Amino acid sequence: MTLEAIRYRAGSLQILNQLLLPHQTSYEELRTVQDAYEAIKSMKVRGAPAIAIVGCLSLAVELRAGAGGDDPVAFIRESLCHLTSARPTAVNMGRAARELMEFAENESMEKNSEQLRESVIAWIEDMLERDVNDNKKIGNYGAQHILSGVPRDAVTILTHCNTGSLATAGYGTALGVVRSLHALGRLKRVYCTETRPYNQGSRLTAYEAVAEKIPATLITDSMAALTMREMDITAVVVGADRVVANGDTANKVGTYQLAISAKHHGIPFYVAAPSTSCDLSLESGRDIIIEVRPPEELTSINGVPIAAKGIEVWNPAFDVTPHQLITGGIITELGVFLPSELQAALTGRLTAL
Amino acid sequence: MTLEAIRYRAGSLQILNQLLLPHQTSYEELRTVQDAYEAIKSMKVRGAPAIAIVGCLSLAVELRAGAGGDDPVAFIRESLCHLTSARPTAVNMGRAARELMEFAENESMEKNSEQLRESVIAWIEDMLERDVNDNKKIGNYGAQHILSGVPRDAVTILTHCNTGSLATAGYGTALGVVRSLHALGRLKRVYCTETRPYNQGSRLTAYEAVAEKIPATLITDSMAALTMREMDITAVVVGADRVVANGDTANKVGTYQLAISAKHHGIPFYVAAPSTSCDLSLESGRDIIIEVRPPEELTSINGVPIAAKGIEVWNPAFDVTPHQLITGGIITELGVFLPSELQAALTGRLTAL
Repeated sequence: MTLEAIRYRAGSLQILNQLLLPHQTSYEELRTVQDAYEAIKSMKVRGAPAIAIVGCLSLAVELRAGAGGDDPVAFIRESLCHLTSARPTAVNMGRAARELMEFAENESMEKNSEQLRESVIAWIEDMLERDVNDNKKIGNYGAQHILSGVPRDAVTILTHCNTGSLATAGYGTALGVVRSLHALGRLKRVYCTETRPYNQGSRLTAYEAVAEKIPATLITDSMAALTMREMDITAVVVGADRVVANGDTANKVGTYQLAISAKHHGIPFYVAAPSTSCDLSLESGRDIIIEVRPPEELTSINGVPIAAKGIEVWNPAFDVTPHQLITGGIITELGVFLPSELQAALTGRLTAL
Repeated sequence: MTLEAIRYRAGSLQILNQLLLPHQTSYEELRTVQDAYEAIKSMKVRGAPAIAIVGCLSLAVELRAGAGGDDPVAFIRESLCHLTSARPTAVNMGRAARELMEFAENESMEKNSEQLRESVIAWIEDMLERDVNDNKKIGNYGAQHILSGVPRDAVTILTHCNTGSLATAGYGTALGVVRSLHALGRLKRVYCTETRPYNQGSRLTAYEAVAEKIPATLITDSMAALTMREMDITAVVVGADRVVANGDTANKVGTYQLAISAKHHGIPFYVAAPSTSCDLSLESGRDIIIEVRPPEELTSINGVPIAAKGIEVWNPAFDVTPHQLITGGIITELGVFLPSELQAALTGRLTAL
């Protein structure tokens, strides 16, 4: 089975409410762009690729219902702008917004409102399909690259956060690599960090692993270095919210620390991300703005307080891993590249390994 | 104010039930050694020094009530053996048991049962007092050592787990160093890791910091490396469950990872521990047996499930930090020593810095 986190049929969009996982499997209808904005902001849907897809699909739903009237371009622009502001660190939504806007403006030159709506809807539906296909390529490229270093044995992977079916249109990025290794019969085990404060590892990655019978062990974030030393970890594979030109990578907070520990233990560290998560307009990670989220995410769980009252909190949602620590490579749908090769690879000046 | 986690009056022992903190301040009477064993095992009381003190005090309470009858030595031996088995990684209980047993056997040569009970009770009461005094020395030595590197400025410390009044007879070890810096007006801020899975940081250290108005910020364990990079951390200071002859240190899981990150950022890493936490009988950390605790500590909070059902869990309670990563030094009541100096310092062949 494969988890279906986004259910889209022409004119109808439902998402699996990830705030209720793993205890409750509940789909919610998103009827408007505002519904999607709120679902993204409150993290009912999360994961950089999934955010972009759900955002755009909500626009498709509104367009199919005739939104925008005689001036759909203005409506599309306003909607995309609003959607992009929901979670600023993930690049995919911003990129999709720019590309879609450019497409819509071009189309508007020669098409009437109704035709424009149709072609924008088609563009968005195509994006959904492309994401799943790209993830499968990422999974295969990543699996082959990791296995190339260990000719016969099964491998043990350590991953962080959730980068699976629940974070993408399906299959996943880093967890897609794990899925591919499992499908090849070469996965011994995957260690999943709990991923505080939002517990994407224990709630979501663990849920996917149990559902698909992938051999998996949950650890706290603080156990990662010990796991690297004791459990013969072959590679660390994580996703990305944004990879910039020099290979510096913004991803879920804790990634930087994993990369430092992997380096210390001589374990290859991989980032798995579709090219849509790469942002060549920024030169280095210093330019990435990191979202700081509310203290309550640390101090309570499901509304129940777990910390001492009155304590101050710092809750950055992401951190930036410098490219020097990405020793395994960056796994994209085009192939696996060293951080130093990324720019050339994405601009077509370098072909896949 | 100083938190009173252990309330002892001749014949009566109460502990603050740390499982109910920070929401409820509830003292529980421990009437027997078995009561103490259960309180230690269930982590109502925790922290290596506090475990030893509560264990021994429960024995004092029983002895005062006449336990052991005509053969108190046998009763003492059996009780200490039972208490030592409750949490095997912390060395203090085992050491106290050996020393107390030797004392009791010597005393039994020349004293009757009643006199023996009296002198064992006095030995235990003295241990309680000694622990607080040793912690204050640790606090002062540590603060001076850290400040010696930064002549004028206030310092920012990062710490892990709880090593304060709630982990010791009072004042604390690593948190004692923080208390001393604060008392000197030289503490800018302390960053406390949440310390999953048991949340000693968010529940206990945060509780102590709020109670004593120590400027403190709570972070998740996964944010420590980012905090080191962004927040100008002067030093990382942690406690210890056991320091062995070469300086390798067993402490709350996550310590090893903090030490790796501190090394990566060139930040001095200190272990604060009374000499009673040092175990020169073991040569290296490889010889330390690490306690693995139940999966439920990760998969639920206060009995409410937080992880996907059916996921496997690895839950080691401690890890071992190799002495090479303890770059600041080991802070004891005798002074601050490099790991390589520890053995000589504890055996009187080296005096304090």
